[in-house]
Amino acid sequence: MLTLEQLNAASAADFVALLDGTYEHSPWVAEAAAAARPFATLAALKLALVAAVRNAGVAAQERLIRAHPELAGKAMISRSLTAESDQEQTSAGLADCTPEEYARIQQLNAEYNARFGWPFILAVRGPNAARDGAGLSRADIINTFERRLAGPPDFERAEALRNIHRIAEIRLNDKLGFVSTRGQQVWDWAEQLAQHSDPEYKARGELTVTYLTDAHQAVAAQLQRWMHACGFDSVTLDAVGNVVGVYEGTNEGTYEGKDATVPRLLTGSHYDTVRNGGKYDGRLGILVPMVLVQALAAQGRRLPFGIEVVGFAEEEGQRYKATFLGSGALTGHFDPAWLEQRDANGIRMVDAMRTAGLTAGSTACLPASLTADMSGMSDLGGMSSMSDMSDMSAMSAITALRRDPARYLGFVEVHIEQGPVLNGLDLPLGVVTSINGSLRYVGEVTGQASHAGTTPMDRRRDAACAAAELVLAVEQRAAAVPDVVGTVGLLQVPAGSINVVPGRCSFSLDLRATTNAARDALGADVRAALAAITARRGLQYTLEPTLVAHAAPSDAAWQQRWERAVAALGLPVHRMPSGAGHDAMKLHEVMPQAMLFVRGGNSGISHNPLETVTADDAELCVAAFMHLLEGLAAE
Amino acid sequence: MLTLEQLNAASAADFVALLDGTYEHSPWVAEAAAAARPFATLAALKLALVAAVRNAGVAAQERLIRAHPELAGKAMISRSLTAESDQEQTSAGLADCTPEEYARIQQLNAEYNARFGWPFILAVRGPNAARDGAGLSRADIINTFERRLAGPPDFERAEALRNIHRIAEIRLNDKLGFVSTRGQQVWDWAEQLAQHSDPEYKARGELTVTYLTDAHQAVAAQLQRWMHACGFDSVTLDAVGNVVGVYEGTNEGTYEGKDATVPRLLTGSHYDTVRNGGKYDGRLGILVPMVLVQALAAQGRRLPFGIEVVGFAEEEGQRYKATFLGSGALTGHFDPAWLEQRDANGIRMVDAMRTAGLTAGSTACLPASLTADMSGMSDLGGMSSMSDMSDMSAMSAITALRRDPARYLGFVEVHIEQGPVLNGLDLPLGVVTSINGSLRYVGEVTGQASHAGTTPMDRRRDAACAAAELVLAVEQRAAAVPDVVGTVGLLQVPAGSINVVPGRCSFSLDLRATTNAARDALGADVRAALAAITARRGLQYTLEPTLVAHAAPSDAAWQQRWERAVAALGLPVHRMPSGAGHDAMKLHEVMPQAMLFVRGGNSGISHNPLETVTADDAELCVAAFMHLLEGLAAE
Repeated sequence: MLTLEQLNAASAADFVALLDGTYEHSPWVAEAAAAARPFATLAALKLALVAAVRNAGVAAQERLIRAHPELAGKAMISRSLTAESDQEQTSAGLADCTPEEYARIQQLNAEYNARFGWPFILAVRGPNAARDGAGLSRADIINTFERRLAGPPDFERAEALRNIHRIAEIRLNDKLGFVSTRGQQVWDWAEQLAQHSDPEYKARGELTVTYLTDAHQAVAAQLQRWMHACGFDSVTLDAVGNVVGVYEGTNEGTYEGKDATVPRLLTGSHYDTVRNGGKYDGRLGILVPMVLVQALAAQGRRLPFGIEVVGFAEEEGQRYKATFLGSGALTGHFDPAWLEQRDANGIRMVDAMRTAGLTAGSTACLPASLTADMSGMSDLGGMSSMSDMSDMSAMSAITALRRDPARYLGFVEVHIEQGPVLNGLDLPLGVVTSINGSLRYVGEVTGQASHAGTTPMDRRRDAACAAAELVLAVEQRAAAVPDVVGTVGLLQVPAGSINVVPGRCSFSLDLRATTNAARDALGADVRAALAAITARRGLQYTLEPTLVAHAAPSDAAWQQRWERAVAALGLPVHRMPSGAGHDAMKLHEVMPQAMLFVRGGNSGISHNPLETVTADDAELCVAAFMHLLEGLAAE
Repeated sequence: MLTLEQLNAASAADFVALLDGTYEHSPWVAEAAAAARPFATLAALKLALVAAVRNAGVAAQERLIRAHPELAGKAMISRSLTAESDQEQTSAGLADCTPEEYARIQQLNAEYNARFGWPFILAVRGPNAARDGAGLSRADIINTFERRLAGPPDFERAEALRNIHRIAEIRLNDKLGFVSTRGQQVWDWAEQLAQHSDPEYKARGELTVTYLTDAHQAVAAQLQRWMHACGFDSVTLDAVGNVVGVYEGTNEGTYEGKDATVPRLLTGSHYDTVRNGGKYDGRLGILVPMVLVQALAAQGRRLPFGIEVVGFAEEEGQRYKATFLGSGALTGHFDPAWLEQRDANGIRMVDAMRTAGLTAGSTACLPASLTADMSGMSDLGGMSSMSDMSDMSAMSAITALRRDPARYLGFVEVHIEQGPVLNGLDLPLGVVTSINGSLRYVGEVTGQASHAGTTPMDRRRDAACAAAELVLAVEQRAAAVPDVVGTVGLLQVPAGSINVVPGRCSFSLDLRATTNAARDALGADVRAALAAITARRGLQYTLEPTLVAHAAPSDAAWQQRWERAVAALGLPVHRMPSGAGHDAMKLHEVMPQAMLFVRGGNSGISHNPLETVTADDAELCVAAFMHLLEGLAAE
């Protein structure tokens, strides 16, 4: 088996020879990467190969794509394919196509070639290539083919290259006998959790786990079972449905009131999903630290500090009109009025909690540590019997979940990026600098509807033209400042007609920035632009704020811990804001926090079944988190 | 009674004194107009007063508005009002307000004053002020008040001034004892025709007369009765439902084949309406020449040429997916396939024709001249019995309606402008230079939907941003060339979300110009802009043409006849394109044509119950048409 040491020690020519077949018929990639040796890690080697392709220019990139074989049905396999490609396509079942599948693929090949001028490249062994049976099915392959056929050419060229890099990664892993064991564990767990889905969605093969449904409770129960098996010291389901696993540190027993010398590290993310969502959004942030505890426990190893892993019951706000129910309970921001909210079927939240058996007593069947924990908190109130849970006792139990920040070192969260940045940069990990604050508005411009033929251009009060100016003003203003985004996601001429000058145009604004100051400056500029545009055109407008969310900049020390951990893997440190909200936003209100992002495939699409993470990236995330723990232990 | 001669002969001071009360508490208006004497016509005097206000600047205009009393309920009447205002408001029934109406008006007064800083002005005696009972009802007044309260301030200032000019016009008519008798006749007829409406609309008080409904047939029957009463020599209902009245000329009997020395003048417009439409769109162009024939017949006068007035049965394309059924039949453009079209209730057009009794035999109860006429046509075919009207016989009868252009001098059409131009210029009449040609498209820009928070600005493929650029490109391009218009009337992000970067944006294009060359240049530039915008942004688009209509430039000689007629009334000649399509577009294909536009009130709104024409403007239209006839007779 090839080793990294061999590759580092070899002559440049031998290096290229040893990597033969990694990039199909394209030894120039390895040649260009050879000069970057020695590589501290396999990940660094992979990135050097990626960099060689990135730096080669479009012409060379397209030659690289064209060096690959077409995705082939039975008849075409084995002509001009490398042994690797042959094996990969055969494993993907492409040798066993039905005549219909074969015909479809040939048709798609023809259309794709006609459109882009290069063959369709897909890493058919999939995101967990070392796991038997985890490769793409023929249906997956055909669906992906159809989807990518519709994309813009420059995007598709980049996507083809990303697939080539993934193919090369898999081949390299094979050459070096490298298996992302811990990443596979995370990936397998995510697959298993995804078997639970609210019934109407499950029937369509979609993943939807909303607050306190049967599927939601099944996920919570599964997480608890796995946490027990991992070796957590205590595992509890709390009064809002959070799954809380504690792995104690060497000094865990010494805590006395607020005099603890080494508080716990808090980590975790949410296990609920949006409707028809992905398998990793939230869950990755629970499963990665579970693997770490599993590893520590397997070694019988204790860190100086305890680790508290929380699977937050709710973050997405899908069943009730409230978000961050899980992390909000820990920070004391659970609004009692939420308990009276009703879901689409008229079920009150408090009744859903009671039906799900969320009582203080539910901890009885589990290790008693959390119950003991809670008895130490000052604002516990009367919690004598939760079995007949009234609103008031439910709220008392929820209030009791509030954490004392003095007991925690801080909060870290790993999460799939849910955006295209890491995917576009070919980087597996990114360090979050801040969770963006945001402002949202809905508005409408009012002009005067009039006849499209008979109203001269200088007599118009066209609401759509004003809205169009606003759309471009938002785009221009947001693009002018780094790490700021602005979006008009809703845009419509209500009841418009092809031959009527729009009298109204409705729109939305979603404005985000890494600091509240930047967010507010963006908001002020956009509002001023709207006022100026409509005033100049003699139009009116309404603008209704619908959301104000504060920015949550990462704690400098914790962000640096993540940066050191990423650097330790031989990876470049890429700092980036989080455009989406996360549980860390809530914890931010009471303790220092910092997040680590993991690259999502398919351009980072999220809230979508196409959301995907490779086992290799998950492994790097686990490794980075372990570096953070080790570093923290050594501080 | 004051005369125009007195006003022309008076000293400037006497002129102002004689006009005292015309413009409320504002003798400066008459002072400024005095220098423009002598006035050839009352219309010229009115325009001079309007010009005085137009030239006075915004400050003086607002002072003029503030010189008027508030629209008042019972308690406020007679304080600081001129005798004229007192009388007008009392006549409008404002002295008899219910307590609720009074309270509502006071509330509206307060809101209006707060918003605009001047009192609400409305010519409560309405568009036919000399007719008892034709003034605005209290409900009309309150509805208008509410509507105008919502408008932009500069628009509302202009609307207040327009009402002041209308009030002054009514007061001037009273001072001079001038009554627009023929205009009133037109106005009264339009009111009476509007009593017929398709039942579901009539129940809501809306005007809708679609092809061959009971209401449509009732309108046709009414037109025929009136034409008879006017003194037309023949009145017929033809095979597509056109009402055709002929008033013969002195040389009418001399026509022999194509050797006629003095062919007829063809005129008319359509009597169908859009859904919830106005009372004048189309009908004005039938009623105005009817009044002329009534006047000629009353004098026993014949012109050298015959006048053929056609009430076209269908222009709007509301019931069937075909337009210009009436005028298309006269030009030989009636598509036989249309007969098989079905309406929303599944009724075939040919069956609707049969049910309506549209047979050649239907002319039997009317003077026989048209039947005789038709027998002279070469392509008549077999029309023996239409009583059992098959598709083929229906089509034969329709084909027989095709006119021989050699038998006509040309086609003229008067029509409400259906746009804001004349209203904005305070001009009652406009001469049409061309009926715009048009292109219509529906399209969609496709980008990539992505997370509004996590997708950096430079990684987006925002379909709405591209569409916004297109909207502004269309506006800019159309505004750069006189008499060209371009509109994006439909604009929507389908299934958009506030927090999703738009992956799709659908839009429409409506592009119009006075010549086909200008239209095509506009279309090419807009298509090029769309291609360039999407290419630059890496997006894709679809664009589907849905309409190509050719421009119909006015015949120079006929346009000049209208210009001379307008000038003869002491009015400035305002030349303008027609942005909307009209029956004249069809006749254009076979004979010279030119149109005259009449100002519409309420900013020229049309296809709407607010469409309105004053009896005084209708009178000017009648007078202009009579000038055209006289001029033509003298040529």
